[in-house]
Amino acid sequence: MTETGNPVIGVFDSGLGGLTVVRELRRQIPSSSIIYLGDTARVPYGTKSESTIRRFAVEDTEFLLRRGVDLLVIACHTVSSVASDYLKALHPELKILSVLEPSVEAAVSVTKDRKIGIIGTTATVRSGKHRSEILKHGDFDVVEKPCPLFVPLVEEGLIDGTIPELVAKMYLEGLKGRIDTLVLACTHYPLLKPIIRRVMGENVALVDPSEEVAKKVAQLLPTPGDKKGQLQVYLTDIPPGYLGLIERFLGEPPDSIVKVSVFE
Amino acid sequence: MTETGNPVIGVFDSGLGGLTVVRELRRQIPSSSIIYLGDTARVPYGTKSESTIRRFAVEDTEFLLRRGVDLLVIACHTVSSVASDYLKALHPELKILSVLEPSVEAAVSVTKDRKIGIIGTTATVRSGKHRSEILKHGDFDVVEKPCPLFVPLVEEGLIDGTIPELVAKMYLEGLKGRIDTLVLACTHYPLLKPIIRRVMGENVALVDPSEEVAKKVAQLLPTPGDKKGQLQVYLTDIPPGYLGLIERFLGEPPDSIVKVSVFE
Repeated sequence: MTETGNPVIGVFDSGLGGLTVVRELRRQIPSSSIIYLGDTARVPYGTKSESTIRRFAVEDTEFLLRRGVDLLVIACHTVSSVASDYLKALHPELKILSVLEPSVEAAVSVTKDRKIGIIGTTATVRSGKHRSEILKHGDFDVVEKPCPLFVPLVEEGLIDGTIPELVAKMYLEGLKGRIDTLVLACTHYPLLKPIIRRVMGENVALVDPSEEVAKKVAQLLPTPGDKKGQLQVYLTDIPPGYLGLIERFLGEPPDSIVKVSVFE
Repeated sequence: MTETGNPVIGVFDSGLGGLTVVRELRRQIPSSSIIYLGDTARVPYGTKSESTIRRFAVEDTEFLLRRGVDLLVIACHTVSSVASDYLKALHPELKILSVLEPSVEAAVSVTKDRKIGIIGTTATVRSGKHRSEILKHGDFDVVEKPCPLFVPLVEEGLIDGTIPELVAKMYLEGLKGRIDTLVLACTHYPLLKPIIRRVMGENVALVDPSEEVAKKVAQLLPTPGDKKGQLQVYLTDIPPGYLGLIERFLGEPPDSIVKVSVFE
Protein backbone atom coordinates (compact mmCIF):
# COMPACT_ATOMS: atom_id res chain seq x y z
CA MET A 1 0.00 0.00 0.00
CA THR A 2 1.10 3.57 -0.64
CA GLU A 3 0.71 6.29 2.02
CA THR A 4 -2.57 7.34 0.41
CA GLY A 5 -3.89 3.79 0.70
CA ASN A 6 -3.60 2.89 -2.97
CA PRO A 7 -2.55 -0.69 -3.63
CA VAL A 8 0.88 -1.26 -5.18
CA ILE A 9 1.00 -3.44 -8.28
CA GLY A 10 4.17 -5.46 -8.86
CA VAL A 11 4.86 -6.40 -12.46
CA PHE A 12 7.77 -8.53 -13.64
CA ASP A 13 9.17 -9.81 -16.89
CA SER A 14 12.40 -11.39 -18.14
CA GLY A 15 13.28 -8.07 -19.80
CA LEU A 16 11.71 -4.85 -21.05
CA GLY A 17 8.80 -6.36 -23.03
CA GLY A 18 6.55 -6.40 -19.95
CA LEU A 19 6.59 -2.59 -20.00
CA THR A 20 3.88 -2.84 -22.68
CA VAL A 21 1.65 -4.32 -19.96
CA VAL A 22 2.64 -1.47 -17.61
CA ARG A 23 1.77 1.03 -20.34
CA GLU A 24 -1.70 -0.47 -20.61
CA LEU A 25 -2.13 -0.51 -16.80
CA ARG A 26 -1.16 3.18 -16.65
CA ARG A 27 -3.67 3.95 -19.39
CA GLN A 28 -6.54 2.04 -17.79
CA ILE A 29 -5.72 2.74 -14.09
CA PRO A 30 -3.65 5.96 -14.00
CA SER A 31 -3.74 6.24 -10.20
CA SER A 32 -2.16 2.83 -9.58
CA SER A 33 1.34 2.68 -8.14
CA ILE A 34 3.49 0.23 -10.04
CA ILE A 35 6.83 -1.40 -9.28
CA TYR A 36 8.32 -3.11 -12.34
CA LEU A 37 11.17 -5.62 -12.31
CA GLY A 38 12.88 -6.59 -15.58
CA ASP A 39 15.48 -9.36 -15.19
CA THR A 40 17.59 -7.92 -18.01
CA ALA A 41 20.81 -9.55 -16.71
CA ARG A 42 19.41 -13.04 -17.35
CA VAL A 43 17.07 -12.32 -20.28
CA PRO A 44 15.82 -14.25 -22.28
CA TYR A 45 13.89 -16.85 -20.28
CA GLY A 46 12.12 -18.46 -23.27
CA THR A 47 15.10 -20.56 -24.39
CA LYS A 48 15.82 -21.96 -20.92
CA SER A 49 14.66 -25.02 -18.96
CA GLU A 50 11.51 -25.15 -16.84
CA SER A 51 13.45 -25.59 -13.60
CA THR A 52 15.65 -22.57 -14.32
CA ILE A 53 12.66 -20.42 -15.34
CA ARG A 54 10.87 -21.41 -12.12
CA ARG A 55 13.92 -20.51 -10.03
CA PHE A 56 14.23 -17.10 -11.71
CA ALA A 57 10.49 -16.46 -11.29
CA VAL A 58 10.67 -17.21 -7.55
CA GLU A 59 13.59 -14.80 -7.13
CA ASP A 60 11.79 -12.07 -9.09
CA THR A 61 8.62 -12.53 -7.02
CA GLU A 62 10.52 -12.40 -3.73
CA PHE A 63 12.24 -9.20 -4.84
CA LEU A 64 8.86 -7.54 -5.43
CA LEU A 65 7.37 -8.93 -2.21
CA ARG A 66 10.20 -7.33 -0.24
CA ARG A 67 9.03 -4.03 -1.74
CA GLY A 68 5.51 -4.52 -0.39
CA VAL A 69 3.43 -5.15 -3.50
CA ASP A 70 -0.24 -6.03 -2.93
CA LEU A 71 -0.88 -7.65 -6.30
CA LEU A 72 1.51 -9.40 -8.67
CA VAL A 73 1.21 -9.34 -12.45
CA ILE A 74 3.34 -11.81 -14.40
CA ALA A 75 3.88 -9.92 -17.66
CA CYS A 76 6.15 -12.61 -19.15
CA HIS A 77 4.33 -15.26 -21.17
CA THR A 78 7.14 -17.77 -20.62
CA VAL A 79 6.87 -17.44 -16.82
CA SER A 80 3.05 -17.41 -17.05
CA SER A 81 3.14 -20.71 -18.96
CA VAL A 82 5.86 -22.49 -17.01
CA ALA A 83 5.80 -21.12 -13.46
CA SER A 84 2.55 -19.33 -12.57
CA ASP A 85 0.91 -22.35 -10.89
CA TYR A 86 4.13 -22.89 -8.96
CA LEU A 87 4.24 -19.24 -7.81
CA LYS A 88 0.57 -19.33 -6.79
CA ALA A 89 1.17 -22.47 -4.70
CA LEU A 90 4.25 -20.89 -3.11
CA HIS A 91 2.46 -17.60 -2.28
CA PRO A 92 -1.20 -18.42 -1.51
CA GLU A 93 -1.43 -15.12 0.44
CA LEU A 94 -0.72 -13.07 -2.69
CA LYS A 95 -3.09 -12.21 -5.54
CA ILE A 96 -1.23 -13.27 -8.69
CA LEU A 97 -2.40 -12.57 -12.23
CA SER A 98 -0.64 -13.89 -15.29
CA VAL A 99 -1.00 -12.97 -18.96
CA LEU A 100 -2.03 -16.56 -19.71
CA GLU A 101 -5.67 -16.60 -18.55
CA PRO A 102 -6.65 -13.31 -20.26
CA SER A 103 -4.99 -14.56 -23.48
CA VAL A 104 -6.95 -17.78 -23.37
CA GLU A 105 -10.26 -16.13 -22.46
CA ALA A 106 -9.89 -13.61 -25.29
CA ALA A 107 -9.00 -16.32 -27.83
CA VAL A 108 -11.90 -18.55 -26.77
CA SER A 109 -14.40 -15.69 -27.05
CA VAL A 110 -13.04 -14.41 -30.39
CA THR A 111 -12.72 -17.65 -32.40
CA LYS A 112 -15.66 -18.55 -34.65
CA ASP A 113 -14.48 -21.90 -36.00
CA ARG A 114 -12.96 -23.00 -32.65
CA LYS A 115 -9.50 -23.11 -34.27
CA ILE A 116 -6.86 -21.24 -32.28
CA GLY A 117 -3.16 -20.74 -32.99
CA ILE A 118 -0.60 -19.94 -30.27
CA ILE A 119 2.81 -18.44 -31.03
CA GLY A 120 5.41 -17.85 -28.33
CA THR A 121 8.89 -18.74 -27.13
CA THR A 122 10.23 -22.28 -27.18
CA ALA A 123 9.56 -22.72 -23.44
CA THR A 124 6.02 -21.28 -23.71
CA VAL A 125 5.06 -23.66 -26.52
CA ARG A 126 6.87 -26.63 -24.96
CA SER A 127 4.81 -26.19 -21.77
CA GLY A 128 1.55 -26.92 -23.66
CA LYS A 129 -0.12 -24.66 -21.07
CA HIS A 130 -2.20 -22.59 -23.52
CA ARG A 131 -3.57 -25.76 -25.06
CA SER A 132 -4.57 -27.27 -21.72
CA GLU A 133 -6.14 -23.98 -20.53
CA ILE A 134 -8.08 -23.58 -23.80
CA LEU A 135 -9.39 -27.15 -23.61
CA LYS A 136 -10.85 -26.36 -20.16
CA HIS A 137 -13.26 -24.08 -22.06
CA GLY A 138 -14.52 -26.87 -24.34
CA ASP A 139 -13.58 -28.52 -27.58
CA PHE A 140 -11.12 -26.51 -29.69
CA ASP A 141 -8.43 -27.19 -32.28
CA VAL A 142 -5.17 -25.71 -30.96
CA VAL A 143 -2.03 -25.31 -33.08
CA GLU A 144 1.15 -24.15 -31.35
CA LYS A 145 4.29 -22.82 -33.00
CA PRO A 146 7.47 -21.48 -31.35
CA CYS A 147 8.96 -18.42 -33.12
CA PRO A 148 12.36 -18.02 -31.42
CA LEU A 149 13.73 -15.45 -33.90
CA PHE A 150 10.90 -12.95 -33.35
CA VAL A 151 12.36 -11.60 -30.08
CA PRO A 152 15.89 -10.96 -31.45
CA LEU A 153 14.36 -9.36 -34.57
CA VAL A 154 12.30 -6.93 -32.46
CA GLU A 155 15.27 -6.19 -30.18
CA GLU A 156 17.36 -5.44 -33.29
CA GLY A 157 14.57 -3.06 -34.45
CA LEU A 158 13.90 -5.23 -37.52
CA ILE A 159 10.11 -5.06 -37.43
CA ASP A 160 9.48 -4.29 -41.08
CA GLY A 161 10.98 -5.29 -44.43
CA THR A 162 12.04 -8.47 -46.20
CA ILE A 163 13.93 -10.22 -43.39
CA PRO A 164 11.17 -10.22 -40.73
CA GLU A 165 8.59 -11.01 -43.43
CA LEU A 166 10.57 -14.09 -44.56
CA VAL A 167 11.03 -15.20 -40.94
CA ALA A 168 7.30 -14.73 -40.29
CA LYS A 169 6.47 -16.76 -43.39
CA MET A 170 8.84 -19.53 -42.30
CA TYR A 171 7.08 -19.81 -38.94
CA LEU A 172 3.48 -19.03 -39.89
CA GLU A 173 2.83 -20.46 -43.39
CA GLY A 174 2.01 -23.82 -41.79
CA LEU A 175 -0.75 -22.21 -39.68
CA LYS A 176 -2.61 -20.64 -42.61
CA GLY A 177 -6.05 -22.13 -43.25
CA ARG A 178 -5.87 -24.09 -40.00
CA ILE A 179 -6.85 -21.31 -37.53
CA ASP A 180 -9.10 -18.23 -37.40
CA THR A 181 -7.54 -16.74 -34.23
CA LEU A 182 -3.88 -16.29 -33.33
CA VAL A 183 -2.64 -15.45 -29.83
CA LEU A 184 0.56 -13.35 -29.74
CA ALA A 185 1.80 -15.06 -26.58
CA CYS A 186 5.01 -13.09 -26.11
CA THR A 187 5.34 -9.43 -25.10
CA HIS A 188 7.52 -8.64 -28.14
CA TYR A 189 5.26 -10.08 -30.81
CA PRO A 190 2.67 -7.24 -30.98
CA LEU A 191 5.47 -5.08 -32.45
CA LEU A 192 5.45 -7.47 -35.44
CA LYS A 193 1.67 -7.24 -35.84
CA PRO A 194 1.70 -5.61 -39.33
CA ILE A 195 3.98 -8.35 -40.68
CA ILE A 196 2.04 -11.14 -38.95
CA ARG A 197 -1.19 -9.64 -40.28
CA ARG A 198 0.24 -9.59 -43.84
CA VAL A 199 1.37 -13.21 -43.66
CA MET A 200 -1.79 -14.53 -41.96
CA GLY A 201 -4.29 -12.44 -43.96
CA GLU A 202 -7.21 -10.28 -42.83
CA ASN A 203 -9.45 -13.15 -41.75
CA VAL A 204 -7.37 -14.28 -38.80
CA ALA A 205 -8.02 -12.38 -35.52
CA LEU A 206 -4.85 -11.44 -33.66
CA VAL A 207 -5.12 -11.50 -29.85
CA ASP A 208 -2.77 -9.14 -27.94
CA PRO A 209 -3.06 -10.03 -24.24
CA SER A 210 -1.68 -6.82 -22.63
CA GLU A 211 -4.99 -4.95 -22.89
CA GLU A 212 -6.88 -7.93 -21.48
CA VAL A 213 -4.67 -8.37 -18.44
CA ALA A 214 -4.96 -4.66 -17.59
CA LYS A 215 -8.76 -4.98 -17.70
CA LYS A 216 -8.56 -7.86 -15.21
CA VAL A 217 -6.38 -5.83 -12.85
CA ALA A 218 -8.77 -2.86 -13.06
CA GLN A 219 -11.65 -5.14 -12.00
CA LEU A 220 -9.72 -6.27 -8.91
CA LEU A 221 -8.65 -2.89 -7.58
CA PRO A 222 -10.68 -0.56 -5.34
CA THR A 223 -12.07 2.55 -7.08
CA PRO A 224 -8.93 4.48 -7.93
CA GLY A 225 -8.32 8.11 -6.92
CA ASP A 226 -7.44 11.01 -9.20
CA LYS A 227 -3.77 11.37 -8.36
CA LYS A 228 -1.43 9.79 -10.91
CA GLY A 229 0.44 6.85 -9.36
CA GLN A 230 4.21 6.40 -9.21
CA LEU A 231 6.05 4.07 -11.56
CA GLN A 232 9.36 2.65 -10.36
CA VAL A 233 11.41 0.54 -12.76
CA TYR A 234 14.02 -1.90 -11.42
CA LEU A 235 16.34 -3.70 -13.84
CA THR A 236 19.03 -6.29 -13.14
CA ASP A 237 21.13 -4.82 -15.97
CA ILE A 238 21.09 -1.51 -17.87
CA PRO A 239 23.19 -1.87 -21.04
CA PRO A 240 23.83 1.19 -23.26
CA GLY A 241 20.77 2.06 -25.37
CA TYR A 242 18.26 0.71 -22.86
CA LEU A 243 16.90 4.06 -21.65
CA GLY A 244 15.64 4.86 -25.14
CA LEU A 245 14.12 1.37 -25.41
CA ILE A 246 12.34 1.80 -22.06
CA GLU A 247 10.69 4.99 -23.25
CA ARG A 248 9.75 3.32 -26.54
CA PHE A 249 8.03 0.38 -24.77
CA LEU A 250 6.45 2.58 -22.11
CA GLY A 251 5.51 5.68 -24.10
CA GLU A 252 6.75 7.94 -21.26
CA PRO A 253 9.69 8.10 -18.83
CA PRO A 254 9.10 6.33 -15.47
CA ASP A 255 9.56 8.12 -12.12
CA SER A 256 12.73 6.14 -11.43
CA ILE A 257 15.00 3.54 -13.03
CA VAL A 258 17.33 1.65 -10.69
CA LYS A 259 19.80 -1.15 -11.39
CA VAL A 260 19.52 -3.89 -8.78
CA SER A 261 20.47 -7.47 -8.00
CA VAL A 262 17.56 -9.79 -7.26
CA PHE A 263 19.75 -11.42 -4.60
CA GLU A 264 19.63 -8.79 -1.86
CA MET B 1 46.69 -31.04 -11.65
CA THR B 2 45.33 -34.52 -12.29
CA GLU B 3 46.65 -37.56 -10.39
CA THR B 4 49.02 -38.31 -13.27
CA GLY B 5 50.46 -34.81 -13.07
CA ASN B 6 48.78 -33.42 -16.18
CA PRO B 7 47.63 -29.83 -15.89
CA VAL B 8 43.91 -29.16 -15.87
CA ILE B 9 42.64 -26.58 -18.36
CA GLY B 10 39.55 -24.58 -17.38
CA VAL B 11 37.52 -23.20 -20.27
CA PHE B 12 34.45 -21.01 -19.93
CA ASP B 13 31.92 -19.35 -22.18
CA SER B 14 28.52 -17.71 -21.86
CA GLY B 15 26.96 -20.80 -23.46
CA LEU B 16 27.83 -23.78 -25.63
CA GLY B 17 29.78 -21.95 -28.37
CA GLY B 18 33.06 -22.26 -26.45
CA LEU B 19 32.90 -26.03 -26.97
CA THR B 20 34.35 -25.35 -30.43
CA VAL B 21 37.51 -24.18 -28.63
CA VAL B 22 37.43 -27.34 -26.48
CA ARG B 23 37.11 -29.45 -29.64
CA GLU B 24 40.24 -27.82 -31.03
CA LEU B 25 42.11 -28.28 -27.72
CA ARG B 26 41.18 -31.98 -27.70
CA ARG B 27 42.42 -32.32 -31.28
CA GLN B 28 45.73 -30.56 -30.68
CA ILE B 29 46.40 -31.76 -27.08
CA PRO B 30 44.44 -35.02 -26.62
CA SER B 31 45.99 -35.79 -23.23
CA SER B 32 44.87 -32.55 -21.61
CA SER B 33 42.21 -32.67 -18.92
CA ILE B 34 39.56 -30.05 -19.47
CA ILE B 35 36.82 -28.63 -17.27
CA TYR B 36 34.31 -26.57 -19.25
CA LEU B 37 31.77 -24.16 -17.78
CA GLY B 38 28.94 -22.82 -19.95
CA ASP B 39 26.76 -20.19 -18.24
CA THR B 40 23.69 -21.30 -20.17
CA ALA B 41 21.28 -19.94 -17.51
CA ARG B 42 22.41 -16.35 -18.19
CA VAL B 43 23.39 -16.62 -21.87
CA PRO B 44 23.82 -14.42 -23.92
CA TYR B 45 26.46 -12.05 -22.50
CA GLY B 46 26.96 -10.03 -25.70
CA THR B 47 23.85 -7.87 -25.30
CA LYS B 48 24.56 -6.97 -21.67
CA SER B 49 26.47 -4.16 -19.93
CA GLU B 50 30.21 -4.22 -19.21
CA SER B 51 29.69 -4.27 -15.44
CA THR B 52 27.30 -7.22 -15.63
CA ILE B 53 29.60 -9.14 -18.01
CA ARG B 54 32.53 -8.54 -15.63
CA ARG B 55 30.51 -9.78 -12.66
CA PHE B 56 29.47 -12.95 -14.52
CA ALA B 57 33.07 -13.54 -15.68
CA VAL B 58 34.38 -13.28 -12.11
CA GLU B 59 31.79 -15.82 -10.90
CA ASP B 60 32.61 -18.20 -13.76
CA THR B 61 36.34 -17.94 -13.04
CA GLU B 62 35.88 -18.56 -9.31
CA PHE B 63 33.77 -21.62 -10.08
CA LEU B 64 36.60 -23.11 -12.16
CA LEU B 65 39.28 -22.11 -9.62
CA ARG B 66 37.40 -24.04 -6.93
CA ARG B 67 37.79 -27.07 -9.20
CA GLY B 68 41.58 -26.68 -9.26
CA VAL B 69 42.31 -25.59 -12.82
CA ASP B 70 45.93 -24.68 -13.62
CA LEU B 71 45.25 -22.63 -16.72
CA LEU B 72 42.18 -20.63 -17.73
CA VAL B 73 40.96 -20.19 -21.30
CA ILE B 74 38.30 -17.54 -21.93
CA ALA B 75 36.48 -19.00 -24.92
CA CYS B 76 33.90 -16.20 -25.05
CA HIS B 77 34.86 -13.24 -27.25
CA THR B 78 32.56 -10.92 -25.32
CA VAL B 79 34.27 -11.74 -22.00
CA SER B 80 37.69 -11.65 -23.71
CA SER B 81 36.97 -8.12 -24.96
CA VAL B 82 35.27 -6.69 -21.91
CA ALA B 83 36.66 -8.52 -18.87
CA SER B 84 39.96 -10.33 -19.57
CA ASP B 85 42.20 -7.49 -18.27
CA TYR B 86 40.00 -7.30 -15.19
CA LEU B 87 40.24 -11.08 -14.58
CA LYS B 88 44.03 -11.02 -15.07
CA ALA B 89 44.38 -8.20 -12.51
CA LEU B 90 42.11 -10.05 -10.08
CA HIS B 91 44.00 -13.37 -10.45
CA PRO B 92 47.70 -12.57 -11.07
CA GLU B 93 48.57 -16.09 -9.82
CA LEU B 94 46.66 -17.74 -12.67
CA LYS B 95 47.69 -18.15 -16.31
CA ILE B 96 44.79 -16.73 -18.30
CA LEU B 97 44.46 -16.92 -22.08
CA SER B 98 41.68 -15.26 -24.01
CA VAL B 99 40.56 -15.69 -27.60
CA LEU B 100 41.32 -12.00 -28.22
CA GLU B 101 45.11 -12.02 -28.57
CA PRO B 102 45.26 -15.03 -30.95
CA SER B 103 42.51 -13.40 -33.08
CA VAL B 104 44.45 -10.18 -33.31
CA GLU B 105 47.81 -11.85 -33.98
CA ALA B 106 46.30 -13.98 -36.75
CA ALA B 107 44.57 -10.97 -38.36
CA VAL B 108 47.71 -8.83 -38.23
CA SER B 109 49.82 -11.57 -39.83
CA VAL B 110 47.23 -12.43 -42.52
CA THR B 111 46.25 -8.97 -43.80
CA LYS B 112 48.10 -7.71 -46.87
CA ASP B 113 46.60 -4.23 -47.20
CA ARG B 114 46.52 -3.61 -43.41
CA LYS B 115 42.71 -3.38 -43.53
CA ILE B 116 41.00 -5.57 -40.94
CA GLY B 117 37.30 -6.09 -40.19
CA ILE B 118 35.99 -7.29 -36.83
CA ILE B 119 32.52 -8.77 -36.40
CA GLY B 120 31.15 -9.78 -33.01
CA THR B 121 28.43 -9.16 -30.44
CA THR B 122 27.28 -5.66 -29.51
CA ALA B 123 29.36 -5.71 -26.29
CA THR B 124 32.48 -7.00 -28.11
CA VAL B 125 32.34 -4.25 -30.72
CA ARG B 126 31.37 -1.56 -28.20
CA SER B 127 34.49 -2.37 -26.15
CA GLY B 128 36.76 -1.32 -29.05
CA LYS B 129 39.25 -3.85 -27.64
CA HIS B 130 40.16 -5.52 -30.94
CA ARG B 131 40.90 -2.14 -32.48
CA SER B 132 43.15 -1.06 -29.63
CA GLU B 133 44.99 -4.43 -29.59
CA ILE B 134 45.50 -4.34 -33.37
CA LEU B 135 46.88 -0.80 -33.23
CA LYS B 136 49.54 -2.00 -30.77
CA HIS B 137 50.96 -3.94 -33.73
CA GLY B 138 51.30 -0.85 -35.94
CA ASP B 139 49.23 1.19 -38.31
CA PHE B 140 46.07 -0.58 -39.54
CA ASP B 141 42.61 0.36 -40.75
CA VAL B 142 40.09 -1.36 -38.48
CA VAL B 143 36.36 -1.56 -39.25
CA GLU B 144 34.07 -3.02 -36.58
CA LYS B 145 30.49 -4.21 -37.03
CA PRO B 146 28.18 -5.84 -34.47
CA CYS B 147 26.03 -8.66 -35.92
CA PRO B 148 23.54 -9.38 -33.10
CA LEU B 149 21.26 -11.63 -35.18
CA PHE B 150 24.01 -14.11 -36.10
CA VAL B 151 23.90 -15.93 -32.72
CA PRO B 152 20.09 -16.48 -32.70
CA LEU B 153 20.25 -17.59 -36.35
CA VAL B 154 22.90 -20.22 -35.55
CA GLU B 155 21.04 -21.34 -32.42
CA GLU B 156 17.88 -21.73 -34.54
CA GLY B 157 19.93 -23.86 -36.99
CA LEU B 158 19.42 -21.27 -39.77
CA ILE B 159 22.95 -21.38 -41.17
CA ASP B 160 22.07 -21.62 -44.86
CA GLY B 161 19.40 -20.22 -47.18
CA THR B 162 17.85 -16.85 -47.96
CA ILE B 163 17.25 -15.55 -44.44
CA PRO B 164 20.82 -15.83 -43.08
CA GLU B 165 22.17 -14.62 -46.44
CA LEU B 166 19.98 -11.46 -46.28
CA VAL B 167 21.00 -10.86 -42.67
CA ALA B 168 24.67 -11.33 -43.58
CA LYS B 169 24.28 -8.87 -46.48
CA MET B 170 22.61 -6.34 -44.18
CA TYR B 171 25.54 -6.46 -41.77
CA LEU B 172 28.46 -7.02 -44.15
CA GLU B 173 27.75 -5.12 -47.40
CA GLY B 174 29.20 -1.98 -45.82
CA LEU B 175 32.53 -3.78 -45.17
CA LYS B 176 33.07 -4.91 -48.77
CA GLY B 177 36.00 -3.25 -50.51
CA ARG B 178 37.18 -1.74 -47.20
CA ILE B 179 38.96 -4.78 -45.71
CA ASP B 180 41.00 -7.81 -46.87
CA THR B 181 40.74 -9.75 -43.56
CA LEU B 182 37.71 -10.42 -41.38
CA VAL B 183 37.91 -11.74 -37.81
CA LEU B 184 34.94 -13.92 -36.78
CA ALA B 185 35.07 -12.67 -33.19
CA CYS B 186 32.25 -14.78 -31.77
CA THR B 187 32.24 -18.54 -31.20
CA HIS B 188 29.03 -18.98 -33.23
CA TYR B 189 30.11 -17.14 -36.36
CA PRO B 190 32.35 -19.86 -37.90
CA LEU B 191 29.15 -21.87 -38.43
CA LEU B 192 28.06 -19.12 -40.85
CA LYS B 193 31.39 -19.20 -42.72
CA PRO B 194 29.96 -20.35 -46.10
CA ILE B 195 27.41 -17.49 -46.08
CA ILE B 196 29.95 -14.91 -44.88
CA ARG B 197 32.36 -16.15 -47.55
CA ARG B 198 29.66 -15.76 -50.24
CA VAL B 199 28.79 -12.21 -49.16
CA MET B 200 32.39 -11.03 -48.68
CA GLY B 201 33.84 -12.79 -51.74
CA GLU B 202 36.92 -15.02 -52.15
CA ASN B 203 39.47 -12.24 -51.65
CA VAL B 204 38.75 -11.57 -47.99
CA ALA B 205 40.57 -13.86 -45.52
CA LEU B 206 38.34 -15.15 -42.70
CA VAL B 207 40.07 -15.59 -39.33
CA ASP B 208 38.60 -18.24 -37.00
CA PRO B 209 40.33 -17.85 -33.62
CA SER B 210 39.61 -21.27 -32.02
CA GLU B 211 42.51 -23.00 -33.80
CA GLU B 212 44.85 -20.18 -32.85
CA VAL B 213 44.01 -20.21 -29.16
CA ALA B 214 44.51 -24.00 -29.00
CA LYS B 215 48.00 -23.57 -30.53
CA LYS B 216 48.85 -21.03 -27.81
CA VAL B 217 47.72 -23.41 -25.08
CA ALA B 218 49.75 -26.26 -26.60
CA GLN B 219 52.88 -24.07 -26.45
CA LEU B 220 52.36 -23.39 -22.74
CA LEU B 221 51.79 -26.96 -21.56
CA PRO B 222 54.46 -29.52 -20.61
CA THR B 223 54.97 -32.33 -23.15
CA PRO B 224 51.68 -34.19 -22.98
CA GLY B 225 51.40 -37.93 -22.27
CA ASP B 226 49.65 -40.56 -24.40
CA LYS B 227 46.59 -41.10 -22.25
CA LYS B 228 43.49 -39.27 -23.44
CA GLY B 229 42.45 -36.62 -20.91
CA GLN B 230 39.05 -36.29 -19.26
CA LEU B 231 36.50 -33.72 -20.36
CA GLN B 232 33.95 -32.56 -17.80
CA VAL B 233 31.21 -30.21 -18.91
CA TYR B 234 29.38 -28.03 -16.35
CA LEU B 235 26.36 -26.00 -17.42
CA THR B 236 24.22 -23.59 -15.38
CA ASP B 237 21.14 -24.74 -17.34
CA ILE B 238 20.36 -27.77 -19.53
CA PRO B 239 17.20 -27.05 -21.56
CA PRO B 240 15.66 -29.80 -23.73
CA GLY B 241 17.63 -30.32 -26.94
CA TYR B 242 20.97 -29.23 -25.47
CA LEU B 243 22.59 -32.67 -25.33
CA GLY B 244 22.36 -32.98 -29.09
CA LEU B 245 23.77 -29.46 -29.49
CA ILE B 246 26.69 -30.27 -27.18
CA GLU B 247 27.66 -33.24 -29.31
CA ARG B 248 27.30 -31.13 -32.47
CA PHE B 249 29.63 -28.39 -31.14
CA LEU B 250 32.07 -30.88 -29.62
CA GLY B 251 32.07 -33.66 -32.22
CA GLU B 252 32.00 -36.31 -29.44
CA PRO B 253 30.23 -36.86 -26.12
CA PRO B 254 32.11 -35.55 -23.04
CA ASP B 255 32.97 -37.76 -20.03
CA SER B 256 30.37 -35.97 -17.92
CA ILE B 257 27.71 -33.25 -18.14
CA VAL B 258 26.53 -31.75 -14.86
CA LYS B 259 24.06 -28.96 -14.16
CA VAL B 260 25.41 -26.56 -11.53
CA SER B 261 24.92 -23.15 -9.99
CA VAL B 262 27.95 -20.86 -10.12
CA PHE B 263 27.00 -19.67 -6.61
CA GLU B 264 28.12 -22.64 -4.53
